[in-house]
Amino acid sequence: MSLEALRYRRGSLRILNQLLLPQRSCYEEIGGVRQGWEAIRAMKVRGAPAIAIVGCLSLAVELHGGAGMGQDKTGLETFIRDSLRYLVTARPTAVNMARAAEELGAFASQEAQREEATAESLRESVIQWAEAMLEKDLQDNRSIGEHGARHLLQASPQDKVTVLTHCNTGSLATAGYGTALGVIRSLHALGHLEHVYCTETRPYNQGARLTAYELVYDHIPATLIADSMVSVAMKEKGVSAVVVGADRVVANGDTANKVGTYQLAIAAKHHEIPFYVAAPSTSCDLSLAEGAEIVIEERPSQELTDVNGVRIAAPGIGVWNPAFDITPHELITGGIITELGVFCPEELRAALPGAVKGE
Amino acid sequence: MSLEALRYRRGSLRILNQLLLPQRSCYEEIGGVRQGWEAIRAMKVRGAPAIAIVGCLSLAVELHGGAGMGQDKTGLETFIRDSLRYLVTARPTAVNMARAAEELGAFASQEAQREEATAESLRESVIQWAEAMLEKDLQDNRSIGEHGARHLLQASPQDKVTVLTHCNTGSLATAGYGTALGVIRSLHALGHLEHVYCTETRPYNQGARLTAYELVYDHIPATLIADSMVSVAMKEKGVSAVVVGADRVVANGDTANKVGTYQLAIAAKHHEIPFYVAAPSTSCDLSLAEGAEIVIEERPSQELTDVNGVRIAAPGIGVWNPAFDITPHELITGGIITELGVFCPEELRAALPGAVKGE
Repeated sequence: MSLEALRYRRGSLRILNQLLLPQRSCYEEIGGVRQGWEAIRAMKVRGAPAIAIVGCLSLAVELHGGAGMGQDKTGLETFIRDSLRYLVTARPTAVNMARAAEELGAFASQEAQREEATAESLRESVIQWAEAMLEKDLQDNRSIGEHGARHLLQASPQDKVTVLTHCNTGSLATAGYGTALGVIRSLHALGHLEHVYCTETRPYNQGARLTAYELVYDHIPATLIADSMVSVAMKEKGVSAVVVGADRVVANGDTANKVGTYQLAIAAKHHEIPFYVAAPSTSCDLSLAEGAEIVIEERPSQELTDVNGVRIAAPGIGVWNPAFDITPHELITGGIITELGVFCPEELRAALPGAVKGE
Repeated sequence: MSLEALRYRRGSLRILNQLLLPQRSCYEEIGGVRQGWEAIRAMKVRGAPAIAIVGCLSLAVELHGGAGMGQDKTGLETFIRDSLRYLVTARPTAVNMARAAEELGAFASQEAQREEATAESLRESVIQWAEAMLEKDLQDNRSIGEHGARHLLQASPQDKVTVLTHCNTGSLATAGYGTALGVIRSLHALGHLEHVYCTETRPYNQGARLTAYELVYDHIPATLIADSMVSVAMKEKGVSAVVVGADRVVANGDTANKVGTYQLAIAAKHHEIPFYVAAPSTSCDLSLAEGAEIVIEERPSQELTDVNGVRIAAPGIGVWNPAFDITPHELITGGIITELGVFCPEELRAALPGAVKGE
């Protein structure tokens, strides 16, 4: 059983407190919206899909526990919409929670307006909506894993492949299983994974802290390297493919992802190693034509100069700390792995359904 | 005045205690061989050229202070040779100290055998030899700086150049001034330096700790970046050239240097940015035909998994930590900068004097 960032059954939600990783693995009960908000705010849970799912499930748990009992359907609808608005305020910049709040809020209103609806039917519908959201994310990640694994194996002359990945794209960033790490999990489950190299992913060390944790947990054969060792690993260690996640894929296939991804793609091209991006279709943003339109977020310099609150860099030095970079589509030589299949960047626009395109 | 890792005048040697950097800048008196040995052992001084120079100068200081006074020239010769053997044991793997001990020991014996030699003339000769060694390293570094700066400026269409460098190759690794950092210092002194980008240089952070410290000290406009940000810096920040140091340059121009150098060279080629290696001719080893013959040292995994004694990586993860990598000569597109001039890799063998070639 692969690592679970959250454990849900109707009426009960527990999340793995990521603040304690990799030293301690500790699940905490989320009894309702207030605790969901606090867990998101404190970053016990992180990763855009995971935040939205925990938020909506915390509402489902509270509804199942009887919240709003005795109110009529209009009163319950108000409670639901207020709770969603409150959840968005935990991490206002996390777009997935805002989008989920909007969609679930609209769904609740629509349900409440149905003539035959009761407070109880509304309660049940909203719980089911949140559960379906969890199921959909898990299912999408498993599809990404399967499509990606099949494509990698078809493209490789070897029976077992060695994959290099960057940052954390696993159970800890999604509802479970992961995107790029989902591909790795699928390869491992199929018995066709030779080895994984994961970068430590400076400056925030998501690779060393989280990806390494997931790989150890799942008994996947893996080695941690510094970001600067990627090229020598490609030269010496028989890397078959690079698979990374994406923050956003735009219409021409240009991809924004954790800083360092662009450099990995250049190194992969130099060594003629296929380079893949794994992302659900919901991460594809066809409203932007090309990567140059994506604004690069710059993060505080302390992420680079301090580790665990202790300064490692010389005082007074200037710092540049972009959080991500853009990999141009021509370097994505393996393909873009979505839940719908693996596409070369040029095919992406045609392959995605109308809903994703905003049509 | 650029940062000095050591301050010497006849009879007095003080070294900058690098263990206290970058937090504190503190010079410590080295009164003789015993203190020289301890400073090297404790790594208060590091970098192969610097270790040898501090060792020999600690002997010079002790001789100047009257060590072996009253002995005849044979007795003094024995004292000198014993001191040198002792100094080598401080860091047995630091080849420069061993080589210096051998050369200075042979020189002392030769001097002692001259018929007209006295204990006092021997004492004076050995002091002068150590002083000349310091002077030669400084002079070589200044020549590297001047040759490199001139070449970069001739190759650049801009009046002011932006340089990216890796690891520490400055005053703190040499007798002073530095190799790659010497080129940067020369460009700055000439008024033709726009900006420096220095990598933090994982896993040991020599860039963040030492290079950044030197750049701040010398008021050179500079920005620290993570190793993974090199490519996006090249794309966005107008980098004119990359200049790095070398642990060893072999006959065909292949170069061993701090891990990550190979990746920098690939990124530079992708962006059509000239890539330079700066190294004294003494770092050129023409006894090896190509880089593949160089054995890559692997270092303890704790360098990667722990920072300041605190573990950052997930427990149980495997680690690969090669200390350096090989940059093939075809990626050294700018040239190899030595104290004798700037050569393309193919010219190197012919350009070096016979002594360096082992002829």
